[in-house]
Amino acid sequence: MSEIYDLIILGGGPAGLTASIYASRAGLNYLLIEKAYPGGQTASATVIDNYPGLPGISGTELAEKFSGHARSMGMKQINEEVLGLDLGEDIKIVHTFSGEYKTRNLLICTGASPRKLGIPGETEFLGKGVSYCAACDGAFFRNRDVVVIGGGDTALTDVICLAAICRTVTIVHRREAFRGSPSLQNKLRTFTNIRCLMCAQPVSINGNGHVESLRIQTSDNTITIPADGVFIAAGIQPNSGLVRGKLDTAPGGWILTDRQMRTSISGVYAAGDVRDTPLRQVLTAAADAAVAVEAILST
Amino acid sequence: MSEIYDLIILGGGPAGLTASIYASRAGLNYLLIEKAYPGGQTASATVIDNYPGLPGISGTELAEKFSGHARSMGMKQINEEVLGLDLGEDIKIVHTFSGEYKTRNLLICTGASPRKLGIPGETEFLGKGVSYCAACDGAFFRNRDVVVIGGGDTALTDVICLAAICRTVTIVHRREAFRGSPSLQNKLRTFTNIRCLMCAQPVSINGNGHVESLRIQTSDNTITIPADGVFIAAGIQPNSGLVRGKLDTAPGGWILTDRQMRTSISGVYAAGDVRDTPLRQVLTAAADAAVAVEAILST
Repeated sequence: MSEIYDLIILGGGPAGLTASIYASRAGLNYLLIEKAYPGGQTASATVIDNYPGLPGISGTELAEKFSGHARSMGMKQINEEVLGLDLGEDIKIVHTFSGEYKTRNLLICTGASPRKLGIPGETEFLGKGVSYCAACDGAFFRNRDVVVIGGGDTALTDVICLAAICRTVTIVHRREAFRGSPSLQNKLRTFTNIRCLMCAQPVSINGNGHVESLRIQTSDNTITIPADGVFIAAGIQPNSGLVRGKLDTAPGGWILTDRQMRTSISGVYAAGDVRDTPLRQVLTAAADAAVAVEAILST
Repeated sequence: MSEIYDLIILGGGPAGLTASIYASRAGLNYLLIEKAYPGGQTASATVIDNYPGLPGISGTELAEKFSGHARSMGMKQINEEVLGLDLGEDIKIVHTFSGEYKTRNLLICTGASPRKLGIPGETEFLGKGVSYCAACDGAFFRNRDVVVIGGGDTALTDVICLAAICRTVTIVHRREAFRGSPSLQNKLRTFTNIRCLMCAQPVSINGNGHVESLRIQTSDNTITIPADGVFIAAGIQPNSGLVRGKLDTAPGGWILTDRQMRTSISGVYAAGDVRDTPLRQVLTAAADAAVAVEAILST
């Protein structure tokens, strides 16, 4: 009979890595499964200035600090994509390409991903001018004209990052005002190459092998903005496809938990961005994971 | 008419300092009031190994990193003791020796303190052999015989810290088994100068100008343990005296909040160890504070 783990952690972002730190300390027989590299969305952030104790750190550096910490405690990690889950009463089974892993407790830390706009050209020009990560792809647009779609912290951070290297940056936002923090909005005003188009809806992304323009709908009419790049920062969606229909979720697919991170199935926990939570940041994801592992230990 | 703040933060531990970081970023007109030095209980921890990204950091160093981060964001802090609170509908008033401060929102981050045993000698010999902080006072007991009372993570950490410098360390614990983490229990076994007395209740601390012994009640009889120092690590209690009878609390005085850290009075929030929460650590206290400030911003 194959090994049964105390705990399997799905995902190696801030929540998963923190769960690993706590599980190592507690002496649990556990496994962390991550399909790509550790760090999650954090690794693609330019600067993170609100993780207490590490001001102004880059996303890659913070991701590396978390995974370094987890490794130093003896993290047990494999790199595999999860294909399916059996959430039985006693034993949960995680199916991957290489086989199956059994566990008594499952902690879902699969995070969230950028929300798609669902407009023509978005998928066609992905990697050919369309990007969801200014920190990753901004450097390809040096001295070019780009558009950022969105109005929250992520969008404003992207705009500031891009304004420093691009010729012009146009923000397209569907509302009358930005939701991003006042300090970011003040920073925006220090640039002379930023233009704001408010109350505007993106309609389509157009080009010929590569992005050439964005078409938007304003309150009055439809206009075309010439652009070499379109950066989409229109919010996020949960990576909860694996548990769709199996766990109770809030509208949008965010996993519901109690305050000890227990889901609607006994032995299944969720932590971080994937759950229905009032705030999605590195700090809160990490704290969720700590609470979840403690809850598992005390059950 | 005197100034009315957007937010007053009570307490400068990990929760209060994180609230300050978030409030600065958000451009709030706020004030942090702390009676002693920033850092809270953190500053008295020997080593903190579970704040992700900063493995094996000392408590004082982590406290300094938090307050340095808060200062770098422009923390507005005063050093005063709070004497009373008026929790009115619109405006809350904080009374101190120097006067009063008005605010629309109040965030209580006053933390928790070591629980007193309430036995004879405990108060009499405080600072004369009785201590609540092994990290602070352990060095005074080099090559001496000490007792640690408790059985949780704090007690076991204290024992390990003391075993390295004292001649002998006796743990007195009222239960049959320790609640502290398995990794700490394993570490305990690497020392030869540690003795465990389980199912034992402390009765009195005795001495002559300085601690000389601890009297304990076991299942069979009452015995006296000669000791130069008695370290008490018997849990914590909330620093919620200022709001007693004003806010809803759980048994023990822990402040009740919803998941956005709102208390039973509109405009009053609580974060960190002082609230009724499943886990009390630097990480979770900081995350609470981030959630609270975001809730204030979105109200």
